[in-house]
Amino acid sequence: MRPSGRATDALRDVSITTGFAHHAEGSCLIRMGGTEVLCTASVEAKVPPFMRNSGLGWVTAEYGMLPRATHTRGDREAARGKQSGRTQEIQRLIGRSLRAVTDRTAMGEMSITLDCDVLNADGGTRCASITGAWVALNLAFRHLVRMNVLKAVPLIGQVAAVSCGLVDGTAVLDLDYAEDSGAEADANFVLTDAGGIVEIQGTAEKAPFTEAQFQELLTLAKLGTTRLFAAQRAALEVG
Amino acid sequence: MRPSGRATDALRDVSITTGFAHHAEGSCLIRMGGTEVLCTASVEAKVPPFMRNSGLGWVTAEYGMLPRATHTRGDREAARGKQSGRTQEIQRLIGRSLRAVTDRTAMGEMSITLDCDVLNADGGTRCASITGAWVALNLAFRHLVRMNVLKAVPLIGQVAAVSCGLVDGTAVLDLDYAEDSGAEADANFVLTDAGGIVEIQGTAEKAPFTEAQFQELLTLAKLGTTRLFAAQRAALEVG
Amino acid sequence: MRPSGRATDALRDVSITTGFAHHAEGSCLIRMGGTEVLCTASVEAKVPPFMRNSGLGWVTAEYGMLPRATHTRGDREAARGKQSGRTQEIQRLIGRSLRAVTDRTAMGEMSITLDCDVLNADGGTRCASITGAWVALNLAFRHLVRMNVLKAVPLIGQVAAVSCGLVDGTAVLDLDYAEDSGAEADANFVLTDAGGIVEIQGTAEKAPFTEAQFQELLTLAKLGTTRLFAAQRAALEVG
Amino acid sequence: MRPSGRATDALRDVSITTGFAHHAEGSCLIRMGGTEVLCTASVEAKVPPFMRNSGLGWVTAEYGMLPRATHTRGDREAARGKQSGRTQEIQRLIGRSLRAVTDRTAMGEMSITLDCDVLNADGGTRCASITGAWVALNLAFRHLVRMNVLKAVPLIGQVAAVSCGLVDGTAVLDLDYAEDSGAEADANFVLTDAGGIVEIQGTAEKAPFTEAQFQELLTLAKLGTTRLFAAQRAALEVG
Amino acid sequence: MRPSGRATDALRDVSITTGFAHHAEGSCLIRMGGTEVLCTASVEAKVPPFMRNSGLGWVTAEYGMLPRATHTRGDREAARGKQSGRTQEIQRLIGRSLRAVTDRTAMGEMSITLDCDVLNADGGTRCASITGAWVALNLAFRHLVRMNVLKAVPLIGQVAAVSCGLVDGTAVLDLDYAEDSGAEADANFVLTDAGGIVEIQGTAEKAPFTEAQFQELLTLAKLGTTRLFAAQRAALEVG
Amino acid sequence: MRPSGRATDALRDVSITTGFAHHAEGSCLIRMGGTEVLCTASVEAKVPPFMRNSGLGWVTAEYGMLPRATHTRGDREAARGKQSGRTQEIQRLIGRSLRAVTDRTAMGEMSITLDCDVLNADGGTRCASITGAWVALNLAFRHLVRMNVLKAVPLIGQVAAVSCGLVDGTAVLDLDYAEDSGAEADANFVLTDAGGIVEIQGTAEKAPFTEAQFQELLTLAKLGTTRLFAAQRAALEVG
Repeated sequence: MRPSGRATDALRDVSITTGFAHHAEGSCLIRMGGTEVLCTASVEAKVPPFMRNSGLGWVTAEYGMLPRATHTRGDREAARGKQSGRTQEIQRLIGRSLRAVTDRTAMGEMSITLDCDVLNADGGTRCASITGAWVALNLAFRHLVRMNVLKAVPLIGQVAAVSCGLVDGTAVLDLDYAEDSGAEADANFVLTDAGGIVEIQGTAEKAPFTEAQFQELLTLAKLGTTRLFAAQRAALEVG
Repeated sequence: MRPSGRATDALRDVSITTGFAHHAEGSCLIRMGGTEVLCTASVEAKVPPFMRNSGLGWVTAEYGMLPRATHTRGDREAARGKQSGRTQEIQRLIGRSLRAVTDRTAMGEMSITLDCDVLNADGGTRCASITGAWVALNLAFRHLVRMNVLKAVPLIGQVAAVSCGLVDGTAVLDLDYAEDSGAEADANFVLTDAGGIVEIQGTAEKAPFTEAQFQELLTLAKLGTTRLFAAQRAALEVG
Repeated sequence: MRPSGRATDALRDVSITTGFAHHAEGSCLIRMGGTEVLCTASVEAKVPPFMRNSGLGWVTAEYGMLPRATHTRGDREAARGKQSGRTQEIQRLIGRSLRAVTDRTAMGEMSITLDCDVLNADGGTRCASITGAWVALNLAFRHLVRMNVLKAVPLIGQVAAVSCGLVDGTAVLDLDYAEDSGAEADANFVLTDAGGIVEIQGTAEKAPFTEAQFQELLTLAKLGTTRLFAAQRAALEVG
Repeated sequence: MRPSGRATDALRDVSITTGFAHHAEGSCLIRMGGTEVLCTASVEAKVPPFMRNSGLGWVTAEYGMLPRATHTRGDREAARGKQSGRTQEIQRLIGRSLRAVTDRTAMGEMSITLDCDVLNADGGTRCASITGAWVALNLAFRHLVRMNVLKAVPLIGQVAAVSCGLVDGTAVLDLDYAEDSGAEADANFVLTDAGGIVEIQGTAEKAPFTEAQFQELLTLAKLGTTRLFAAQRAALEVG
Repeated sequence: MRPSGRATDALRDVSITTGFAHHAEGSCLIRMGGTEVLCTASVEAKVPPFMRNSGLGWVTAEYGMLPRATHTRGDREAARGKQSGRTQEIQRLIGRSLRAVTDRTAMGEMSITLDCDVLNADGGTRCASITGAWVALNLAFRHLVRMNVLKAVPLIGQVAAVSCGLVDGTAVLDLDYAEDSGAEADANFVLTDAGGIVEIQGTAEKAPFTEAQFQELLTLAKLGTTRLFAAQRAALEVG
Repeated sequence: MRPSGRATDALRDVSITTGFAHHAEGSCLIRMGGTEVLCTASVEAKVPPFMRNSGLGWVTAEYGMLPRATHTRGDREAARGKQSGRTQEIQRLIGRSLRAVTDRTAMGEMSITLDCDVLNADGGTRCASITGAWVALNLAFRHLVRMNVLKAVPLIGQVAAVSCGLVDGTAVLDLDYAEDSGAEADANFVLTDAGGIVEIQGTAEKAPFTEAQFQELLTLAKLGTTRLFAAQRAALEVG
């Protein structure tokens, strides 16, 4: 029995509210159970120096967590004067995930920055960030199409992410904080709606896991992301 | 005629939604027109070193703005590695304002940190932060009373803040961004429900103003905060 | 009775010695009682990026305190690797105050930086910095007139600052450290010789104050700055 | 045909020279082709604050690259004043990998820090770091056994790492820099000699990959690490 | 002919005014020609962690230059967020020089920090700092004797410093900025009144110099410091 | 008797292995007894901003020590976020020493950065860095001659460095760590093969030393560097 009472292959309730940020070219507030992340996409008409004259666009991400998104208040990274290794790892992951489904040639030399800020945390914040950021990115591209800056949305497909883990020897989908902190192993899967793998990050801090177990986690992740792709599409239809 | 169509002495629509942050001892999302600030109060059972053995509690604040709370994306302070002078000035102001209505002796040696994070900015973010932070602080104290940590809420009164300014020679209440950026002078007033003055910050970057003009701004501020005190009380009744 | 034996409306002894810094285009050492601040004005033939092609000049300030300007030695900000919130708040205030009396169009695209470094501190360092910085700025403009860079000194008027406060319920002028640390409320007033208000920063950390009390403080401030304007003019006649 | 002329399932030449650092409790210089990493293990008789009184030991890692380990000189991180996100990601990975095979209860409350410094880089530096760090850690534990601090080496097994990737559609083992920079996808596998999976980091920046491709990479990784386990054992016999 | 018209073996005018800083246990303003340095000594009743329970006292120094002490304004180190290598080198030198003449056993476990802040710079600021810091240190020790904290001033002798250099092939004493910037070589000598050498820092950025030339510089330095020792004693008699 | 059993005028065993870094234009690993420093020279086709259009080249250095080069592990400077004063002092010394023997006019507008990274430390690391860096610089210049970028190696002569010190009243050559930590005085000499003095840094933290003692140290240094010049030449013949 999971702490939340969910079945092993059940996602938490998902909701994606578009337009939460008033000024951003694209934005949404994604909720997965008690985890809430505000994702905004900001367009800039230039690329970073290392990309100039490449003909390619740039998509990158920044991630943050409000100090009291968690059970006990964490230090504000701006006050500490640096971002943690965890923060940097996550924002690099979000950026890579979105670039994997973006046609950067069709996009042309512009930059889009996805800001993913966690308002409430209950596990799975990096996965929710990726799933929500794809919606914000899509909305920003649609905005650019409406403004006649782009002819079509330069996205090759959808990308979404979910975490799976081994809890008391059982593979479960979409870990919340209570499960995550006690899991023997957990893995984040970033998958596309065409069935492709974009990123896999599997970690066994407690004890190594087997290939068979890993396969179970991947199967759950495919199931979970299928539902997330539907939620993304539904949000865009409304938005 | 103001850009928003408001009368010179009209506040923007105010709403205060309590409990927005799931884990904080007290929290609210305050909206003043297009400005939205998430205020959380976090309790810690100790005071900073310079306060130890004083018998007094400590109330402090941190302030932040999400990168895309504004028209164009701003740098993330955590990524830049330091907080701006503006940020520090604001968080010091919020802290002083709340301490002015807190009975720190009755509170005993504990600390409460108010985090005010701007989700959407349309002028007046520091004032909205103070008004919302008082609600979050009150809720945190009520929580401590329920937990039998405190006997009563150690607040001497209510505190709220509003900005007023001279726009095209006219004194107006509660400036939004469009007005603020063109004002000849503006002032932030932090007042108590008992009619006391906690903080006044008046600034004339364009041209000095007169005593009579200053008096007009103060009169508007008293009017505005009276309404904010009512909104605070209404939010607490629901919360 | 005030600790210094002064009347409630008496300034401390003021002296302004011009030319203290050998290399600066304008400089003075201002003494207000035991507070001594070295103010220098440095001219640069360009403006910061955000001002380019605006046709306007730029006036800004930096503030510092020598580690042993105070009773007990403070950390050197350069060694700590960052400026405190208080330092940033003060240098922003000095810059705004001087810009309010500068005709930046007549000045043309150049920058002047006012460095205000406290050699000895006994209360009122930010106010002494503003009063002294105006003299240094004036001297730098005179230098530019002599060099035929400017046709006339582009200053609209004089600006000076003084602090007033409520000590044991009485409004007093020009607080020294002994009074400042025990005041119920204190306010810094930045005024012009034409009777205009440039900045008001009133703070009640102990208890809110009334409008009537605030009015008393403002009356004292007008009295005090009248004397400071005379001291500024006298220093320039000698300089 | 691979740039190096190797077969798709061939590792580069591996050598592990123990005792390279004179003062460390354990150390080795690991070479995988043109990649050379100096790994040292430093023992300290205490654990970090968050581990105190847990009865458990702590194993952590730091990673660095000499400025001219690469084709063109990189900035020195100490001079820039911060470690990159990549550096932090790698050192977190090394630490987790070693903790997964350490019996931290048997180790008792002490800390071991693995420093992995890249002297020459030709791809696969994080994998070489893990493989070499295990040898350094083992040597440090043997030293502690000889000193009668520990009764036995508290390692549950061997851990080693290798990267695999898809280059021109073909799965290849142990990418060097020339291959890595052009790969469609690459994955780092951290495996144990008992066949367990400790970490998997698979990334497709160019295009998503399939489950079948991922399976091929994992098969190569198992082959490669088998040889690395033998190299580790051989080095320890000599050392 | 030297730019200043001085003979090759002539010091600039020296003056040492004690008590310039109101709060410090010892202080002086030292002037050597156009160079002016404010030196303060601050006593603290404890030593840094690495000195605890050694029975020895600690003497250390910090050095700074006001932004407009120089011909063109330099960045404020506090604003840049770090001290330059030059600053750190100088403050280490000052600290070592003073420790060399302090009986740290007689001093007991206390710390004295010498702050040397350059108000006006015209060459030789590090040497003036050392010469002035010794006076400030002596005054602080005398204060501690008067307070019955120490029985006697724990100084073994006097220490003073002067720079010498090769300018157009000629050895000259006490370089000012005009000479320093064009010298072929320059050397700073820190000497004691007993004829001992505490520090020598000789540098030939343009071309190597000979032993004979070095000997000439040393001879000049002994001459110059003899006069500085007299100036130190004279200042203390007045002070 | 010295701890190492060496005669007072004996260097430690010296070896210089060229080509240790695979990618650098010039490199060597220099060993002086237990001290090992990896020196690399990196060429860049531009000079820093302050040198542009001067027609001169630029030679600079950076210095680092691996965390476990020493008996007990030191903090990683990249992790601490800043370089120590000692590090900065050393890298400035290395840069000046090499510039003193470089014909920067013949070199033309290019930069060469010497990275000196200590792999194992047993005293004298800054001297070994200078001696090794000269070899790396020479090799880089030879590379540029082979590439037809330069016509000839723009070096005026050889430069090498050695430390000497007073240990128990006796002058000894080339201090190792055991001697260095107990020396009454020590001095680093940077000399040229033509008998010129480039840098002298003599320090007496324990007690001042005499001119005669200083002369003894200089005599030893000339003897020692003569042997180091031979080792440099021998390494280049092989390299």
